[in-house]
Amino acid sequence: MSEAIQFLPPRDSVMSRRAAIVTDLAELLPPECLVHEARELVPFETDAFVSYRRLPLAVALPKTTAQVAAVLKYCHRYGVPVVPRGAGTSLSGGAIPQEDAVVLCLSKMARILELDYANRTATVQAGVTNLSISEAVGTDGFFYAPDPSSQLACTIGGNIGMNSGGAHCLKYGVTTNNLLGVKMVLVDGAVIELGGKHLDASGYDLLGLICGSEGQLGIVTEATVRLIAKPEGARPVLFGFEASEAAGACVADIIASGIIPVAIEFMDKPAIEICEAFAHAGYPLDVAALLIVEVEGSEAEMDAMLQSIVEIARRHQVKTVRECQSATEAALIWKGRKSAFGATGRIADYICMDGTVPLSKLSYVLNKTAEIVESFGLRVANVFHAGDGNMHPLILFNANDPADAAKAEAAGNEILKLCVDAGGCLTGEHGVGIEKRDLMRHQYSEVDLHQQMAVRAAFDEGWIMNPSKVFPLDGRA
Amino acid sequence: MSEAIQFLPPRDSVMSRRAAIVTDLAELLPPECLVHEARELVPFETDAFVSYRRLPLAVALPKTTAQVAAVLKYCHRYGVPVVPRGAGTSLSGGAIPQEDAVVLCLSKMARILELDYANRTATVQAGVTNLSISEAVGTDGFFYAPDPSSQLACTIGGNIGMNSGGAHCLKYGVTTNNLLGVKMVLVDGAVIELGGKHLDASGYDLLGLICGSEGQLGIVTEATVRLIAKPEGARPVLFGFEASEAAGACVADIIASGIIPVAIEFMDKPAIEICEAFAHAGYPLDVAALLIVEVEGSEAEMDAMLQSIVEIARRHQVKTVRECQSATEAALIWKGRKSAFGATGRIADYICMDGTVPLSKLSYVLNKTAEIVESFGLRVANVFHAGDGNMHPLILFNANDPADAAKAEAAGNEILKLCVDAGGCLTGEHGVGIEKRDLMRHQYSEVDLHQQMAVRAAFDEGWIMNPSKVFPLDGRA
Repeated sequence: MSEAIQFLPPRDSVMSRRAAIVTDLAELLPPECLVHEARELVPFETDAFVSYRRLPLAVALPKTTAQVAAVLKYCHRYGVPVVPRGAGTSLSGGAIPQEDAVVLCLSKMARILELDYANRTATVQAGVTNLSISEAVGTDGFFYAPDPSSQLACTIGGNIGMNSGGAHCLKYGVTTNNLLGVKMVLVDGAVIELGGKHLDASGYDLLGLICGSEGQLGIVTEATVRLIAKPEGARPVLFGFEASEAAGACVADIIASGIIPVAIEFMDKPAIEICEAFAHAGYPLDVAALLIVEVEGSEAEMDAMLQSIVEIARRHQVKTVRECQSATEAALIWKGRKSAFGATGRIADYICMDGTVPLSKLSYVLNKTAEIVESFGLRVANVFHAGDGNMHPLILFNANDPADAAKAEAAGNEILKLCVDAGGCLTGEHGVGIEKRDLMRHQYSEVDLHQQMAVRAAFDEGWIMNPSKVFPLDGRA
Repeated sequence: MSEAIQFLPPRDSVMSRRAAIVTDLAELLPPECLVHEARELVPFETDAFVSYRRLPLAVALPKTTAQVAAVLKYCHRYGVPVVPRGAGTSLSGGAIPQEDAVVLCLSKMARILELDYANRTATVQAGVTNLSISEAVGTDGFFYAPDPSSQLACTIGGNIGMNSGGAHCLKYGVTTNNLLGVKMVLVDGAVIELGGKHLDASGYDLLGLICGSEGQLGIVTEATVRLIAKPEGARPVLFGFEASEAAGACVADIIASGIIPVAIEFMDKPAIEICEAFAHAGYPLDVAALLIVEVEGSEAEMDAMLQSIVEIARRHQVKTVRECQSATEAALIWKGRKSAFGATGRIADYICMDGTVPLSKLSYVLNKTAEIVESFGLRVANVFHAGDGNMHPLILFNANDPADAAKAEAAGNEILKLCVDAGGCLTGEHGVGIEKRDLMRHQYSEVDLHQQMAVRAAFDEGWIMNPSKVFPLDGRA
């Protein structure tokens, strides 16, 4: 990987670098796998972090690992930046391209390759959507555990890039805990396989390193993931509290007791109102904070676990306890929670933060968050994975007012710094991307950052893979 | 980290390099923290992989992270190899020194720093033994899950280096699944912190990379690990089979059904006889293979899970099913299993392999293993973590007969290749160390190995950290 970048081969003198690259890529890919007209490029100009937009140079939509390898080898040779993309649902700008970059979009590689129940694994191409795995194995009694709110659209490749989580990750872990192996193309086009259907790895755990590396170390084209047996039953229960602090302290006490429900989700009053108006999930409207606690197992197991949880909730003056009575009701409760971002978008512009804190600091950080947002004259709605300490304050603002937008961004930065100072970190599941790259120095020393960048350079010396993400722009020596 | 290695400062001309290094280290460490007399060095000449022995140059026994940093900084500057060591229980030679190396032994850093039940974490120094964490939190109803058979002696630092497992890791995962953060000294003496009490990490998952890196990327001095609540009850159950294949197929079917017991351990007839003679655990002697299946939870939960497991076992013609009736009996059953290696050592010399295979290949690999060992005219005993597919064939031989020893090594190599060819890998929990370094090419292509070595070089350009381990000796370009 240490050869110098080469100049593009000489052409007709009037051909621009852009046109030359498009011409060359057209040799490597069938026509339906290459997009380069401006109007066709528009869908790729941003992702779910819509603060930045740039039309890329071109979009490659390969159908095979060999095509991915050919594009990477070409881009590596001529120093063309490459931005990997799944469904473009990144909330941190992880898939936003530069103008001189080729977007490498995996959406045409969307086949489930193998369901292997004997080893409880599914092997899929990177462009397969998260939910489609659970759908494929559901009738056989299995599911794939990580469940981001965008699971209808987001892809496994994107999940691996961001180490995505979801509401049900409290019990089953996030992507890195459910990923067993990948096929990956290195920057120079070489193909490696990491992990497999077996436990552990000989040598270094590169699989763990790849997960969450935001497409900077290589392009995953296939993944083998763990399947989990569906529980006998599952039951979400609503716990309403008169104060957010009480709900936060209740979460910390549930976890400290050693009980691990499948999910503990938190919604404050603004979030409850927004979601209830959208989904009519039957959330109580007379409380300041709501916990959705899901337990699973046999009826006896669920009863026993719930009894312990209710006892803890009572110690925190719980006002409402409502057990879900039917599958329809359970689906509605989750629909309300999972549509929180979309429902918020109906009433205001918002940015969603993704800080993670130790559980013992939950109430403290909630209070401080409210103070920070108020000091900027803005409003906040909190809806998040409380059992994991993974907070998602939604800062509401008016995107048509640049001053308001600047305030929202400043408030968001203050909140993320608060999370770090409370012993937490900048991101739980959305990644660093563009959004948090300049905050990395608040979390890491120069020694830390230098070491992370040295690891990156061991994969991509020329810094062409998803550049301008994760690290501060002035970080590279 | 890219400065050139320096020459040692000039001394009295008759002073050897060895003496000069010892003199310099004596400036950095208090007298009780430095060992350099030959007779004192003997305990450090090998580990539990006793095939090689070398007296190191010296042994540093630091008491603080600052002392670890001072020793590393010195060794880095003058190109002195450093071999990290916990309790020296490595079965793959991970802690065996070179003659020109300084052993950096963490055994004096053995304090538990914090028990934080609110966040369900323990923060400990690297030299704390595995079992002492569970002992410290046991009366409060918690435990630390990974439980290597050497847990009385082995240290958390060593567990992290090897990503250690244990019988109860089927449900709770191995070290990497239970490690939340580390303080680590880089090769140049800089100190970094990775992870913490929060979920996930911003930037790359260096914590996952460090776990299992066999001391080559830095020296961990402190670790924060996950505590787990003790279950209401736990019950090991013995399942005896008339054929090893039936027991292997039964394990695969239990896992394929989605049931996850706490542990599924496998013992073949030779292993049963050896362990029963030592521990008098009450194992049935009239069967060809035994499974120890442990379930946990409330009485009702255990009954329900056991009922499903018994049904599966019946489909595989189980001969004996014996539920444990008391805590004393349960302790005896586990004592028998955990003393398997020691008990085997009483009747023969042995080498213990550590291959891991997909569960669907368990019976196939067991049969082939028997064929291989027989073809060398040797005997084998199998006792291993079947639920994880983590096999431990013990090849019995006579260490006083060099021909016999060579046969055992050759048979071991064949078995590990068999595991890789069956879709598995060279190691489940014992690491690569010296033992398996030359087999790495059977698992990995040159591209794979090159990438792993590039990652290593991003931490240790001068290749001084635990050199001659993990990678083939001719692997470094």
